[in-house]
Amino acid sequence: MKIVILGGGATGMGVAAKVKRNDKNCEVLVIETGNYVSLGACGLPYYVGKNFDEPNMLFARTIEKFNESGIEIIINSKIKLIDLKNKKVVVNNKEITFDKLVIATGADAISPNIKGLNTIEHFKLTKFEDGLALRNIVEKKNINNILIVGSGFIGLELAENLKDLNKNVTMVEIEKDILSNLYDAEISELIKTTLEKNKINLMLNSFVNNFYKKENKVIANISDKEYEFDLVITATGFKPNTELLLNTGLNFYKNNAIIVDEFGKTNIEDVYAGGDCCAIMNKITNQFCYSPLATVASKQAKVIANNICKIESRFNGTIQSSIIRLFDKAIARCGLTVREANDLNIKTKVSYIKDKDHTHYLKGQSDVHLKLIMNEDTHELIGAQMFSHKDSILRFYSLATMVWSKIKVNEALEQIDLPYSPPFAKSFDIIHIAISKFI
Amino acid sequence: MKIVILGGGATGMGVAAKVKRNDKNCEVLVIETGNYVSLGACGLPYYVGKNFDEPNMLFARTIEKFNESGIEIIINSKIKLIDLKNKKVVVNNKEITFDKLVIATGADAISPNIKGLNTIEHFKLTKFEDGLALRNIVEKKNINNILIVGSGFIGLELAENLKDLNKNVTMVEIEKDILSNLYDAEISELIKTTLEKNKINLMLNSFVNNFYKKENKVIANISDKEYEFDLVITATGFKPNTELLLNTGLNFYKNNAIIVDEFGKTNIEDVYAGGDCCAIMNKITNQFCYSPLATVASKQAKVIANNICKIESRFNGTIQSSIIRLFDKAIARCGLTVREANDLNIKTKVSYIKDKDHTHYLKGQSDVHLKLIMNEDTHELIGAQMFSHKDSILRFYSLATMVWSKIKVNEALEQIDLPYSPPFAKSFDIIHIAISKFI
Repeated sequence: MKIVILGGGATGMGVAAKVKRNDKNCEVLVIETGNYVSLGACGLPYYVGKNFDEPNMLFARTIEKFNESGIEIIINSKIKLIDLKNKKVVVNNKEITFDKLVIATGADAISPNIKGLNTIEHFKLTKFEDGLALRNIVEKKNINNILIVGSGFIGLELAENLKDLNKNVTMVEIEKDILSNLYDAEISELIKTTLEKNKINLMLNSFVNNFYKKENKVIANISDKEYEFDLVITATGFKPNTELLLNTGLNFYKNNAIIVDEFGKTNIEDVYAGGDCCAIMNKITNQFCYSPLATVASKQAKVIANNICKIESRFNGTIQSSIIRLFDKAIARCGLTVREANDLNIKTKVSYIKDKDHTHYLKGQSDVHLKLIMNEDTHELIGAQMFSHKDSILRFYSLATMVWSKIKVNEALEQIDLPYSPPFAKSFDIIHIAISKFI
Repeated sequence: MKIVILGGGATGMGVAAKVKRNDKNCEVLVIETGNYVSLGACGLPYYVGKNFDEPNMLFARTIEKFNESGIEIIINSKIKLIDLKNKKVVVNNKEITFDKLVIATGADAISPNIKGLNTIEHFKLTKFEDGLALRNIVEKKNINNILIVGSGFIGLELAENLKDLNKNVTMVEIEKDILSNLYDAEISELIKTTLEKNKINLMLNSFVNNFYKKENKVIANISDKEYEFDLVITATGFKPNTELLLNTGLNFYKNNAIIVDEFGKTNIEDVYAGGDCCAIMNKITNQFCYSPLATVASKQAKVIANNICKIESRFNGTIQSSIIRLFDKAIARCGLTVREANDLNIKTKVSYIKDKDHTHYLKGQSDVHLKLIMNEDTHELIGAQMFSHKDSILRFYSLATMVWSKIKVNEALEQIDLPYSPPFAKSFDIIHIAISKFI
């Protein structure tokens, strides 16, 4: 059997490796348009922030290592044609046929539609070369005032890392709240306060009208006032990298993400897809969503590889769990926000608690904010959002487990036996307190 | 209704406060033999270790505050008689009747049966005055060589705290493994290594034959060799404080812990009991066990108070979750060990993984050891044990949640959507890896 995989990111290489482990006689060919595979792209902001110096640490495995395990890889590919019905692709003017195709083309940064953006040098952070280029320029002594357009995960991670390099960072966000698609207003407000405390110049509810060059500076007109920057970075989200596939008969989600079933199959026989180029099922709403997170890639890769090798395997969806460090603080979330639940006409009950992470008599006690959202009809916990010191945030794993497993809120859950000792918790943890408010 | 509570610890005062919140017309009287109430005893080792200077921080609330909320407290009580059938107690030569009695007398340190122990000055750490006395003596310049007999939680916490005070700490343990009732051998070995790395003189599989005084030193004969110490502390476990109750008609567990049902009721009408003087139900085995942990007190207190006030409430048992910091490391556990499961003829499957806590390219990456124990018949996770850096241990909350909720191990659990970002985890966390070994 010949498996062709479009894309050498985490999903594509994950499928390749797992197919080979399942059945070493499968022929596996990965077609990658860039000049590398298996980039751990989540590390890019930390490379820019000089947390480490060797950029090759970002690669999970080398091409040679993949080749040794029998995986063929074509890098720098020019894909001319994708013909799903006739099971062939044309790459570098060569026709390649397949028995099974896996589409794992990932996502690209959305380039914001701002007047003058193309007339100035600007950066984004999606690919390996983006990381190299951005680190190279921020190392220059005359690059001090940096504008980040967008306050999503990449924007926030970059803000933290650039501040650690003593840069003067301005962040402009068109929404009035940060991460308003993932957090309700209380937590967004805490994120805002954290950024401001750490001297990020935050401009919410603001947008760039236009950019222009003035000597070696960039002038940005932000909400009708002009500001001068040494460097502009755009971080306004991701779009699935599916342009070449739009007329191949595949079914797409509204943003052109590929729609797949729980087995990773598209609507076309023998064509699978996974990772950031796909829409995925929200485990709570049973509706598709677009949530390009690294946590999905490895799981979908395994599911696809198994099904290709006739080992039945299902992807169980996402609760859009995420966590991010913000200087000495951290935020984590999963499930639905109240706003999302309201939009779906789900009746919710909310518990919002501010308490301390551990006992008052031990040093380093810090605030934890926890918001829990319960479906009032089913009594299932359908959402959780936490803000705390970075050393306290991992207790959120408990909440992700509850939401994932659709555990019902009741007296038994209120009594959950979480481990306690004075340096880590209180004997009645904030999780107990928050749950008890529902009882 | 008149509620009399024997014991002013976390359970007793918890019942008192909750009864008053439920029904302010209830008459609540707490009878305490010591001269204080609501001690947070878990903080004592940290007071000894000078983590804080004001010992009164260990009290959750003052007697005056309890009185203000209508709770009457008699401290320094001498209990002469407890007559459960006739619903009366005799305290300080005064007869007190009750409608409902709550026994919350807690536990006392077990005094090890060692020849000569009574001829030397020695310390334990259960009560407030123990903490004051121990801190007072370890502050002395000539107190350097300290022997701790026993390596349970208190022994380990003391070892850490005394080492932080630059004392030379020797710990003697009769078993060949540390915490062998709570951890399997792999994790016990890691605890041992941690203590040794931190220069605790660990003597396992050893016991003290006898003590004697020599000038202002203590000589301990440990496994037939003599050692000299400035100070001896015993920390060899707890026994329920139920001596005065033995002939009152109550049902007892093998160590004289009181047996109660899920409502907190003893076998005698209108007599409740909770906290460290009780045996509690193990949620996994459905058998009684003795597990005197602070996490139980607040939960049982609420259950008892509710049932007294005719609000039906059930205590859901324990999975004996615990966590403890050991210098820069930490350990956490819940459920059954393999040995316990074997003793109960439960067929188990084990997954033991050593991996890293977070991405290799960010500093501070550290080892995590995780052992999961699955019931092979039901596929439920019945035990988990983790050893890691202290900043990584809270991910254990996820495992306590799985064991508590009797979640089945399957492909859906393997795909649990735990939040990931480079400073906190890997996109496929050690929890995923450990679960995947079962699939």
